[in-house]
Amino acid sequence: MRGLLIVFSGPSGVGKGTVRKEIFDTPNHEFEYSVSATTRSPREGEVDGVDYHFISKEEFEQMIEKGEMLEYAEYVGNYYGTPLKYVNETLDSGKDVFLEIEVKGAEQVKEKAPDGVFIFLTPPDLTELRKRITDRGTDAEDVINERMKTAREEIDMMALYDYAVVNDEIKLASDRVKNIIKSEHFRVDRVMKSYVENLLEK
Amino acid sequence: MRGLLIVFSGPSGVGKGTVRKEIFDTPNHEFEYSVSATTRSPREGEVDGVDYHFISKEEFEQMIEKGEMLEYAEYVGNYYGTPLKYVNETLDSGKDVFLEIEVKGAEQVKEKAPDGVFIFLTPPDLTELRKRITDRGTDAEDVINERMKTAREEIDMMALYDYAVVNDEIKLASDRVKNIIKSEHFRVDRVMKSYVENLLEK
Repeated sequence: MRGLLIVFSGPSGVGKGTVRKEIFDTPNHEFEYSVSATTRSPREGEVDGVDYHFISKEEFEQMIEKGEMLEYAEYVGNYYGTPLKYVNETLDSGKDVFLEIEVKGAEQVKEKAPDGVFIFLTPPDLTELRKRITDRGTDAEDVINERMKTAREEIDMMALYDYAVVNDEIKLASDRVKNIIKSEHFRVDRVMKSYVENLLEK
Repeated sequence: MRGLLIVFSGPSGVGKGTVRKEIFDTPNHEFEYSVSATTRSPREGEVDGVDYHFISKEEFEQMIEKGEMLEYAEYVGNYYGTPLKYVNETLDSGKDVFLEIEVKGAEQVKEKAPDGVFIFLTPPDLTELRKRITDRGTDAEDVINERMKTAREEIDMMALYDYAVVNDEIKLASDRVKNIIKSEHFRVDRVMKSYVENLLEK
């Protein structure tokens, strides 16, 4: 049975990387991390194939052309993307694949693989919004308006996802994500499919 | 924000009651158990309002007539059912309600409350079906056919539910159910709704 594609994203600055590291640093996870490819130079301490696959701009553009990127984006003059081959091979082997990518990338994956599990990490102040707005009665109107605007943008982004998890505390957020992935394995569609596959294999 | 309605069911004999007791015996659950009503006499040690609401046949039939039962069924001459009032009041107070009911009852709830979380408990031999069928190569054809028939019936039942959990070990099954309930709180529809409610309350 094919593994689950897990897409973990959220607004920039929310702490996706930190939560992802916490998830993979604890032993009780059973999914593989998909290492992104990038054209930027390795920073000190970064290891090729662990932190990123460091490839040239030409290689990257060839991969885009051949449809070998599940998603990609350009950011301050460099490409970042997810090579499709590793993802497909791992899913086919029955293992779950975990992507930690930007929201623009998640939108691309949603189009190509709508049956993935899409998890959105939200900043803690989103859930606290009303409290914050009312508590800080002294805030200038433009500050409040700015906050409401951000809130609306987050809501719009969120609608694409299956789950939204608050990053109030790294350990808690990490546990929530791991729980969600576990529970998704018990989705009835999935259980029935594996069950029917078993019967057919007889 | 309204609580989640959790419907826990499965084929008779699968161990629903045992798993439910395990779930409620451990402290880390945050949902209320909906006590069923019945017209049968209390057995020794059973407490009214804890194990069941013991009511008369006349009372039960009046409640059916007034639409005060979320679901009900007759079984060896006695009625069993879920009073709607407690369920609605608890959900309205923001708490989750947990129903442990028969599959026929779950079908009735699905019609009335399709947005509930429906969890199906399956016997462990279902997932082991292929193994069992092939391992026991000596089984008579009618035994195998009987097993295949049961399997097909289970699949048909399961399709109504959101999740299917195997009762291979009581503690494991109980943890899976609790995880599913936790994760359902992070469903994006739910988070967005609570978020919009917060904004509107401002």
